[in-house]
Amino acid sequence: MACAFCEIVAGRKKQHIVAEDAHTLAILDHMPLVPGHTLVIPKKHYASIMEMPKEELCSLILHVAKMEKAVLKATGAGGADIRQHYRPFLAESELKVNHVHFHVIPRNLDDEMYKNLLNEIPMRKMPSEAEFGAVAKKIKAALGK
Amino acid sequence: MACAFCEIVAGRKKQHIVAEDAHTLAILDHMPLVPGHTLVIPKKHYASIMEMPKEELCSLILHVAKMEKAVLKATGAGGADIRQHYRPFLAESELKVNHVHFHVIPRNLDDEMYKNLLNEIPMRKMPSEAEFGAVAKKIKAALGK
Repeated sequence: MACAFCEIVAGRKKQHIVAEDAHTLAILDHMPLVPGHTLVIPKKHYASIMEMPKEELCSLILHVAKMEKAVLKATGAGGADIRQHYRPFLAESELKVNHVHFHVIPRNLDDEMYKNLLNEIPMRKMPSEAEFGAVAKKIKAALGK
Repeated sequence: MACAFCEIVAGRKKQHIVAEDAHTLAILDHMPLVPGHTLVIPKKHYASIMEMPKEELCSLILHVAKMEKAVLKATGAGGADIRQHYRPFLAESELKVNHVHFHVIPRNLDDEMYKNLLNEIPMRKMPSEAEFGAVAKKIKAALGK
């Protein structure tokens, strides 16, 4: 199976892209844990940060910090979780992609993730295109400021 | 209250240090989610990665990748989670420290964190000094290889 993220980088698979630079892409998670849940990925395929060249990993984390700031501004969240999971023991699927990605998840004390501690991954609802579009617009605007 | 991590950096508070370089310190989490749970922190106090100078954030993430490799080797885990939480809405305490830290958490499909999805933070038991020492020794050895 082709890597879903490589397909997005190549423009063959559609996803809401909120930011882009030479080495990295920031996209909305297609099944957000909370609104504004963003992924920052290297354009080049790596299975783990351990195999990334230093310059590319630096570039990636700087983009993560930049997106964290934009996501906080766009959503008005009080905080954010950054997560990068390397779990090669999980089968690759639409949800578990074997391509390095940093989650940027806006957090609030009363958010759904706290309410739903029953699951590490809470029940996720696929947002509508309009909902995705509205969040993407806010994040892009926050980046511009 | 003095920052617990600044106290460790200054050597006034004891913790198992497994690695150190000019800007960063890697220590064992004092209440590990699973054995080998390590924290990588900047020596200088920052409340979020968003306020860190680029060079220091780069240095930090490179240390995280290095520690991930060592922790995988030391524990034999199949994967690892990297987490960096910015949650200023939580009261500062021994568990919630207002000093940037990256968690490096070894993961396996049959680990306690998967078994205990009831809590985002599973019940943690404070390991004994001997247990801490044994893990620290393994990680230091893995770094040497």
